Amino acid sequence: MRPSGRSSNQLRPVTITRNYTKHAEGSVLIEFGETKVLCTASVVDSVPRFLKGKGQGWLTAEYGMLPRSTHSRMDREASRGKQGGRTLEIQRLIGRSLRAAVDLKQLGEHTIYIDCDVIQADGGTRTASISGACVALHDALFTMRQQGKVKTNPLKHMIGSVSVGIYEGTPVLDLDYPEDSSAETDMNLVMDEHDGFIEIQGTAEGATFSGDELMQMLELGKQGIREIFDIQKKAIAS
Amino acid sequence: MRPSGRSSNQLRPVTITRNYTKHAEGSVLIEFGETKVLCTASVVDSVPRFLKGKGQGWLTAEYGMLPRSTHSRMDREASRGKQGGRTLEIQRLIGRSLRAAVDLKQLGEHTIYIDCDVIQADGGTRTASISGACVALHDALFTMRQQGKVKTNPLKHMIGSVSVGIYEGTPVLDLDYPEDSSAETDMNLVMDEHDGFIEIQGTAEGATFSGDELMQMLELGKQGIREIFDIQKKAIAS
Amino acid sequence: MRPSGRSSNQLRPVTITRNYTKHAEGSVLIEFGETKVLCTASVVDSVPRFLKGKGQGWLTAEYGMLPRSTHSRMDREASRGKQGGRTLEIQRLIGRSLRAAVDLKQLGEHTIYIDCDVIQADGGTRTASISGACVALHDALFTMRQQGKVKTNPLKHMIGSVSVGIYEGTPVLDLDYPEDSSAETDMNLVMDEHDGFIEIQGTAEGATFSGDELMQMLELGKQGIREIFDIQKKAIAS
Amino acid sequence: MRPSGRSSNQLRPVTITRNYTKHAEGSVLIEFGETKVLCTASVVDSVPRFLKGKGQGWLTAEYGMLPRSTHSRMDREASRGKQGGRTLEIQRLIGRSLRAAVDLKQLGEHTIYIDCDVIQADGGTRTASISGACVALHDALFTMRQQGKVKTNPLKHMIGSVSVGIYEGTPVLDLDYPEDSSAETDMNLVMDEHDGFIEIQGTAEGATFSGDELMQMLELGKQGIREIFDIQKKAIAS
Amino acid sequence: MRPSGRSSNQLRPVTITRNYTKHAEGSVLIEFGETKVLCTASVVDSVPRFLKGKGQGWLTAEYGMLPRSTHSRMDREASRGKQGGRTLEIQRLIGRSLRAAVDLKQLGEHTIYIDCDVIQADGGTRTASISGACVALHDALFTMRQQGKVKTNPLKHMIGSVSVGIYEGTPVLDLDYPEDSSAETDMNLVMDEHDGFIEIQGTAEGATFSGDELMQMLELGKQGIREIFDIQKKAIAS
Amino acid sequence: MRPSGRSSNQLRPVTITRNYTKHAEGSVLIEFGETKVLCTASVVDSVPRFLKGKGQGWLTAEYGMLPRSTHSRMDREASRGKQGGRTLEIQRLIGRSLRAAVDLKQLGEHTIYIDCDVIQADGGTRTASISGACVALHDALFTMRQQGKVKTNPLKHMIGSVSVGIYEGTPVLDLDYPEDSSAETDMNLVMDEHDGFIEIQGTAEGATFSGDELMQMLELGKQGIREIFDIQKKAIAS
Repeated sequence: MRPSGRSSNQLRPVTITRNYTKHAEGSVLIEFGETKVLCTASVVDSVPRFLKGKGQGWLTAEYGMLPRSTHSRMDREASRGKQGGRTLEIQRLIGRSLRAAVDLKQLGEHTIYIDCDVIQADGGTRTASISGACVALHDALFTMRQQGKVKTNPLKHMIGSVSVGIYEGTPVLDLDYPEDSSAETDMNLVMDEHDGFIEIQGTAEGATFSGDELMQMLELGKQGIREIFDIQKKAIAS
Repeated sequence: MRPSGRSSNQLRPVTITRNYTKHAEGSVLIEFGETKVLCTASVVDSVPRFLKGKGQGWLTAEYGMLPRSTHSRMDREASRGKQGGRTLEIQRLIGRSLRAAVDLKQLGEHTIYIDCDVIQADGGTRTASISGACVALHDALFTMRQQGKVKTNPLKHMIGSVSVGIYEGTPVLDLDYPEDSSAETDMNLVMDEHDGFIEIQGTAEGATFSGDELMQMLELGKQGIREIFDIQKKAIAS
Repeated sequence: MRPSGRSSNQLRPVTITRNYTKHAEGSVLIEFGETKVLCTASVVDSVPRFLKGKGQGWLTAEYGMLPRSTHSRMDREASRGKQGGRTLEIQRLIGRSLRAAVDLKQLGEHTIYIDCDVIQADGGTRTASISGACVALHDALFTMRQQGKVKTNPLKHMIGSVSVGIYEGTPVLDLDYPEDSSAETDMNLVMDEHDGFIEIQGTAEGATFSGDELMQMLELGKQGIREIFDIQKKAIAS
Repeated sequence: MRPSGRSSNQLRPVTITRNYTKHAEGSVLIEFGETKVLCTASVVDSVPRFLKGKGQGWLTAEYGMLPRSTHSRMDREASRGKQGGRTLEIQRLIGRSLRAAVDLKQLGEHTIYIDCDVIQADGGTRTASISGACVALHDALFTMRQQGKVKTNPLKHMIGSVSVGIYEGTPVLDLDYPEDSSAETDMNLVMDEHDGFIEIQGTAEGATFSGDELMQMLELGKQGIREIFDIQKKAIAS
Repeated sequence: MRPSGRSSNQLRPVTITRNYTKHAEGSVLIEFGETKVLCTASVVDSVPRFLKGKGQGWLTAEYGMLPRSTHSRMDREASRGKQGGRTLEIQRLIGRSLRAAVDLKQLGEHTIYIDCDVIQADGGTRTASISGACVALHDALFTMRQQGKVKTNPLKHMIGSVSVGIYEGTPVLDLDYPEDSSAETDMNLVMDEHDGFIEIQGTAEGATFSGDELMQMLELGKQGIREIFDIQKKAIAS
Repeated sequence: MRPSGRSSNQLRPVTITRNYTKHAEGSVLIEFGETKVLCTASVVDSVPRFLKGKGQGWLTAEYGMLPRSTHSRMDREASRGKQGGRTLEIQRLIGRSLRAAVDLKQLGEHTIYIDCDVIQADGGTRTASISGACVALHDALFTMRQQGKVKTNPLKHMIGSVSVGIYEGTPVLDLDYPEDSSAETDMNLVMDEHDGFIEIQGTAEGATFSGDELMQMLELGKQGIREIFDIQKKAIAS
């Protein structure tokens, strides 16, 4: 029995609010249950130095948690003077994942900055970030096309992300904080719309996991990400 | 004529949403028109080293802007590795102002962390922060009293804050971004409920301002802050 | 009765020593009683990146305290690896104030660096810094004109600065450290030679201050700054 | 055909040199072909603050590359003033993996520092680090037992690590740099001696990978790690 | 012929002004010609952690240059966020040298902070710093004795420092900036009152120096330091 | 009697292993007894900004100690976020010394980076670094000549370095850690092949040293460095 009463293959309610703030080219509030992340995609008309003159674009991501998005207040990273290892690890994951969704040649000499800021945390902030950021990216690329900055849509496909894990011996989908904090295994998956894997990051906590358990988690994740694609598409269509 | 069509003594619509996030003891979203700031008040059951054993509490504040809360994306301070001078100046102002609202002796050996994070910026983020943070502080102190952490309410009085300035030669109340970015003078006021001044920070940009203009700005500010007190009280009563 | 025996509208002895050090284009030691600040103005023949090619100049300021300029030794900011919030706040104030004295167009593509380093602190270091730096600025601009770097004098007018406050219930001018450390209100004023306000920064400590008290402080400050203008002019004339 | 001429399931020659340096309680040079990593395990008789008085120990890891361990010289992280995201990600992985090998209760109030410093890089530095660090950990725990710092051996089981990937469409084991830099998928596995998974980190570069490809990679990795366990055991036995 | 017209064994005029600032227990302005350094010695009634409870004291030194103490303005180290290598090297030299003058056991559990801040630079700032700091140290220890913090004087002997070098082929004493910037060899000496060496730091620039040249420089330095001891003693006697 | 049983003028066994790693243009492992330092020389085809377009090259050095190269584990400087004063002092010494061996004009617009990383420390790491780095530099310049990057050999002469000191009242050559940690005087010498001095850095610890003792130490050092030149030459010849 999961703390939330959900069945093992059940996502939390996922909602996507587009145009959540007004300045960014793409701005999405995504909610996975009580987890709320503001994902913006910002277009800058230049590229990092290492890409100057190469006729292609770039996408990079940053991630942050508001100090009191969590149960007890965390130190503000800006105030501590550096981003922690967890933050850097997550923003590298978000950046790699979203770059897999974009044809950087078609993007031309522009940079997309993805910012994922956690307003409220209840487990799964990185998977919510990736799933929401993809919609923000979609919107930013649409804006670019309307402004004539790109001629064709550089978006290759949507990407979706969800966590799976083993909680009290049972593989479950989309762990919330009470599950995440005591799960034996925690795994984050990023996939494209054709069941192709973009990222798998699984970690055993305490016990190891077997090949069989891995298969069950991957199957749960694949189903969950398909549902997320549906929710993304409905949000985009509206 | 103001860009927004407001009269010179007219506030933008101010809304206060309490319990905006679930973890903080006080959590308020305050909106001054298009400016949106999330203000949380967090209670920590210890005091900074310099106050250990002195039988009193402390209140400190931090301020941040989400990277794309602004027209063009700003660098993330956590990523740059330090908070800028403007950020430090604002959070020092917020902290001093809110400390003026609390009896630190009655607070006991607890620290209140005020976090003001700008979700969307359109001028006046520091005055919105102070006005919203005071409601978050009220709620956090109420929680402390319910939990028996304080016996009497350490809140001495509410505080309110608003900006005034001189825009195209005319003193105006509560400048939005189009006004703020071209105003001749920009002034931030913090007051208590008895028309007492807590902070005055006025800066001439380009031209200087005269004693008469100062008087007019102070009068506009006093009226504006009275309105903010009304809005705070309605929010707290609801 | 003030600790120093001064009357409420009496400045400390103010002395200005020009050409205090030999390398800077402008170099002034200013003393407000026991407070001693070395103010230099340095000319650099380039502008920050954001102004390149715009045909105008820039002025920026930095402020520091020698570690033992104060009663007990302070940590050296260079050694701690960052400037504190108070330092940043003060150097931003000095920079804004001095920029109000210069026509940046006439300055051409040059940058003036103002450095205010406190040799000995006894209250009022920021107002002494601004009042002294204006003389150093005057001298640096004079040097530039002699060197043919500017054709006309970019100095629009002198600026002066003084603190006022409420000490034991009485408005007083130019607070020294014993007053400053226990004043109910502390306010710094920056004005030009025509009684125009450039900066007002007032903070209540403990109690608030009323509109009447504000008026009295402004009047004291205006008189004090007029005296400082006289002292600046005598120094420049000598 | 692999650049090195190896078959797809063939490891590079792996050598383990124990007692490579003299000060550390465990000191191992591990070589995966041309990749050479010095792994030390240092025992400190205290625990981090968050564990004080809890009767258990801790293990943490740090990773670094010598500036010219790579083809072109990299900036020294100590000189740049911060560790990069890749470094933090790797050292977090090493730390989590090795903690899975230790019973922290049995370790008592001691901390093991694992340092993995890359002397020469040719692909697979993180998997070599983990495989080598486990031997250094073994030796350090043995030393502790001899010194009476622990009564029973806190080592639960050995752990091994290897990379797998898809190179020119074919799943391959233990990628060297020429493969790694152009692989379509790169995956790092950490397992225990009973085929249990501790970490899976797979990333698609350019294309995605299918469930079938994942299965093949996991099978290659499992076989490769079994070989590494044999090499570790021979090294320990000698 | 030296640029200043001095003979090869001639010091610049050296002046020592005690009690230059009022807060420090010892405060000395030392001038070696145009080089002016403010040296303060501050007493703190505690010791660094590594000496707690060991019944001895400590002495440490910090060094800084005001940004416009030099020909062209240097970046402020506090603003750059770190002290440069030259600064650290010099303050380590000052600290080691002054510790050689103090019996740390007799000092008891107190720390002396030496701060050497260069007001104006014209060559030889480190040797002036050491020579001036020793007088500030003397005064601080005298204050401690008056306050009963030490029972006997912990000062073992005075120390003095001077630079020597080879300028246009000739060994010379006490190089000023025009000499220092083109000397073939630059050497700093620190000695005690009994012709004992405390520090020798010599560097060849361009050419090397021979054993004979070294002897001549050491002889010049010994004579110069004897003169400095005389000047220190006169200053202390006055 | 020295702890190692060596006579006072006896070096530890010195070995030089060229081509220790494969990527660097020059790569040398040097051992002074138990002290082991990896010295690499890397060629970069550009110069620092201050030399752009001046038709000359540059050489710079960095130094680091692996965290467990020492008796007890040191903090990793990359993790602490800054290099310590000792590190900066040593790398400045290495850089100055090696620049004395190179004709920077003949080097052309190239930069040589010297990296000295201590694998195992047992006293004398800076002198071993300099002596080994000179061989790595030789090899890198040879590679440049083969690649046609320089037309003539920019190496002016080899340089060698050794420590001398006073241990239990006796001048000794090449101090190991047990001697170094209790020596009364510690001195590092850098010389060229013609008995010319490049650097002398001597420090008294506790007692001072006399002119006679200095002479004896210099003589020991000169003999020791001659032996090091022989060892360098044999290594290069092989």
